[in-house]
Amino acid sequence: MVTGTGPASARGSSAEHRGRLSDSARVEAFSDGVFAIAITLLVLDLRAPAEHSQESWLNQLLHQWPGYLAYLASFGYIAVIWVNHHQLFTRIAAVDLGLLWRNLGVLLGASVLPFPTAVLSGAFLDGRRPNEVTSIVLYTLVAAFMAFTWLVLFHHLARNDRLLVTGTPAVFFATERRRALLGVLAYLVAAAVAVWQPLASLLIICALPVFYGATSEGWHGVPNRRL
Amino acid sequence: MVTGTGPASARGSSAEHRGRLSDSARVEAFSDGVFAIAITLLVLDLRAPAEHSQESWLNQLLHQWPGYLAYLASFGYIAVIWVNHHQLFTRIAAVDLGLLWRNLGVLLGASVLPFPTAVLSGAFLDGRRPNEVTSIVLYTLVAAFMAFTWLVLFHHLARNDRLLVTGTPAVFFATERRRALLGVLAYLVAAAVAVWQPLASLLIICALPVFYGATSEGWHGVPNRRL
Amino acid sequence: MVTGTGPASARGSSAEHRGRLSDSARVEAFSDGVFAIAITLLVLDLRAPAEHSQESWLNQLLHQWPGYLAYLASFGYIAVIWVNHHQLFTRIAAVDLGLLWRNLGVLLGASVLPFPTAVLSGAFLDGRRPNEVTSIVLYTLVAAFMAFTWLVLFHHLARNDRLLVTGTPAVFFATERRRALLGVLAYLVAAAVAVWQPLASLLIICALPVFYGATSEGWHGVPNRRL
Amino acid sequence: MVTGTGPASARGSSAEHRGRLSDSARVEAFSDGVFAIAITLLVLDLRAPAEHSQESWLNQLLHQWPGYLAYLASFGYIAVIWVNHHQLFTRIAAVDLGLLWRNLGVLLGASVLPFPTAVLSGAFLDGRRPNEVTSIVLYTLVAAFMAFTWLVLFHHLARNDRLLVTGTPAVFFATERRRALLGVLAYLVAAAVAVWQPLASLLIICALPVFYGATSEGWHGVPNRRL
Repeated sequence: MVTGTGPASARGSSAEHRGRLSDSARVEAFSDGVFAIAITLLVLDLRAPAEHSQESWLNQLLHQWPGYLAYLASFGYIAVIWVNHHQLFTRIAAVDLGLLWRNLGVLLGASVLPFPTAVLSGAFLDGRRPNEVTSIVLYTLVAAFMAFTWLVLFHHLARNDRLLVTGTPAVFFATERRRALLGVLAYLVAAAVAVWQPLASLLIICALPVFYGATSEGWHGVPNRRL
Repeated sequence: MVTGTGPASARGSSAEHRGRLSDSARVEAFSDGVFAIAITLLVLDLRAPAEHSQESWLNQLLHQWPGYLAYLASFGYIAVIWVNHHQLFTRIAAVDLGLLWRNLGVLLGASVLPFPTAVLSGAFLDGRRPNEVTSIVLYTLVAAFMAFTWLVLFHHLARNDRLLVTGTPAVFFATERRRALLGVLAYLVAAAVAVWQPLASLLIICALPVFYGATSEGWHGVPNRRL
Repeated sequence: MVTGTGPASARGSSAEHRGRLSDSARVEAFSDGVFAIAITLLVLDLRAPAEHSQESWLNQLLHQWPGYLAYLASFGYIAVIWVNHHQLFTRIAAVDLGLLWRNLGVLLGASVLPFPTAVLSGAFLDGRRPNEVTSIVLYTLVAAFMAFTWLVLFHHLARNDRLLVTGTPAVFFATERRRALLGVLAYLVAAAVAVWQPLASLLIICALPVFYGATSEGWHGVPNRRL
Repeated sequence: MVTGTGPASARGSSAEHRGRLSDSARVEAFSDGVFAIAITLLVLDLRAPAEHSQESWLNQLLHQWPGYLAYLASFGYIAVIWVNHHQLFTRIAAVDLGLLWRNLGVLLGASVLPFPTAVLSGAFLDGRRPNEVTSIVLYTLVAAFMAFTWLVLFHHLARNDRLLVTGTPAVFFATERRRALLGVLAYLVAAAVAVWQPLASLLIICALPVFYGATSEGWHGVPNRRL
């Protein structure tokens, strides 16, 4: 396309610019949709007590406490991922096909999480230890896979700085990659702990999103960049 | 960042401005997604009659009336919350990490609501009074928790007016905090009533969103501010 | 608010303008979310055959044909409603509290539709005629309620032209109100027909969205207005 | 439309422009919502093991492997469709009623996919060969229908270049129509293979989205157009 000079040319280049922004905007909107649905579908793992059961509903509801912990752990994990995703995309200026597929990997991890959450919640209701161990190991493997998809995404961005907003500090991805790698390792440790002590592992699973949330740069970065 | 004068500087400052707006926009979009999904998932608590059952489907459907009441109460509650959320964010200019996490608390309350709704609907179908009491108490505790998350959110905003649009009246948060506190108390009263009379408590639960909707400033505020 | 002259004042008035547009934008985004979720949740009414059943899955799947019809009728109905909603909001310039609550009524109708769809689909699988009649009557009453919420919405807009984009023809709401009223009546007729002949009523239910889609002004209006 | 000169005219033409953009924007937002929900609802097809069952949960989870394959195949298929949809809409400048209904056809295909995925996953758990064949044939027919809806959409756009962004190469739709037709044929071949060898057909179903993803122009096209 040959462009002239003056206002018309300026409009053309602004349209191109918008085109690229719009790419990033639609990836963000689709990702937000998947995160919002996955975080809300978790509630289907909490089950109403069985009708016509002899046991009182109060007992049945109290008995379901590991399900509530699993619900909170998964809600927190997806919430932290959404915060990180938002923070990351304030630094992304353009989307290429490689970033697109790696982002779909992140979405796969988030949208599959209600499944191991339901298994974990069911296993602790069932109450037999081998099943509890199985369910915790499944949960931690899926959670480790989620952290791994972030590692892959950060690695792609660290090698393609043409996709980034000008002025993104080089140290940013080094830090974020380290956090993602730590996540993979922490969930694998939780898997190993589960074999000896499933409840201890469940506590680690609940604590990890809190830790990530507390150390997240998150929205802090935006005011900082204004300095 | 040291910025020069002229067009380049203007673009820089406009980009910063957009950056901050975009923060708020994505928080609103994600919240809208969660509210829209939670309000629509409520329909899964309404169950088709059991096939091959001896009882006529007409009777089974009519017998499910407490489920319809619970559905309407929860639909109304989330609708009111969405209206308030929209109203609030027309007054928010920037999002910090504290606001972000408190907003996620509000979303946790909204997205968990289909669970106590299902329990309440099931308990009145089941028909044994202790289970009805249990289900109403569960519902009111979750609803009180939702009102409490708003109290926490308003408290944060009242102490961080740098996050607000210039010109937001100081009286705004005083009024809103009082409404949130009233919500917490009203649902706790409904919990206490449930122990004596579950049906009366169910009526309170249905009436509260109507009351909040009717007294909501809501979209009224926008034309007012144009005066 | 006393506003000065010059750039600062222009920015202020543009912010007010954006404020109002943003109102309408967020109502549209929330409504789109509810429509998108309701139309997609319908798929949960289609059930995989029972495992370990003696009957072949081919037979079970073929036997479920009324469920497919009900799915298509509800998908078509929500699709038509979304098209109409979009068309309507291209004519709306501002949102007041009355419009907001009436719009939530429209969303209530759309988001509850998966329930009568599931009942209808189950009743024809069950195969006993009284249950089929019950399910069709339930479906048509909900569908008539949906058309009625549109009537209420159009009535409000016809009496509040300050909410409308300048240049909206007066005849627009007269036509649309007539279409909504026709919808209420058509679904009530289908309810009456169901008592004698449920299958004939099911065909009417499938035909109505096709008729509404074919006569919808829809996106046609936009190019027309450019003339 | 006869337009005058000066600021008022400029505002009028910009409003028209926004009107058209907004049409396309809301179609994209609604489609993104449906794709995001359909891709996330797939997780409901993965089932937690039955409580109080004698078989260990580890065995039950491992036994569910065809369900995981079906989940990944459907996730990949909807992801590829979303990428293609995004790519297509960067080339669309206006939306007419014909495009709108054809797009709803595409959404119908995407939102019904969790149903054959659940049937396929259940049939391989059930383990009887005739049911496996039935489920694969159902899946491939739905997937072929999805590819067919794209063929219909591309055909409409190839004949209505007034809807397209200026400068879209004529060869674009020829290529895309060929890809859609190939998709229809490939899924019909997979249906035929299923009768002899269901597992081979399942592998084809898993491979097709990978193939489509790898050959997708996707986001590549955007930088190219800037040359």
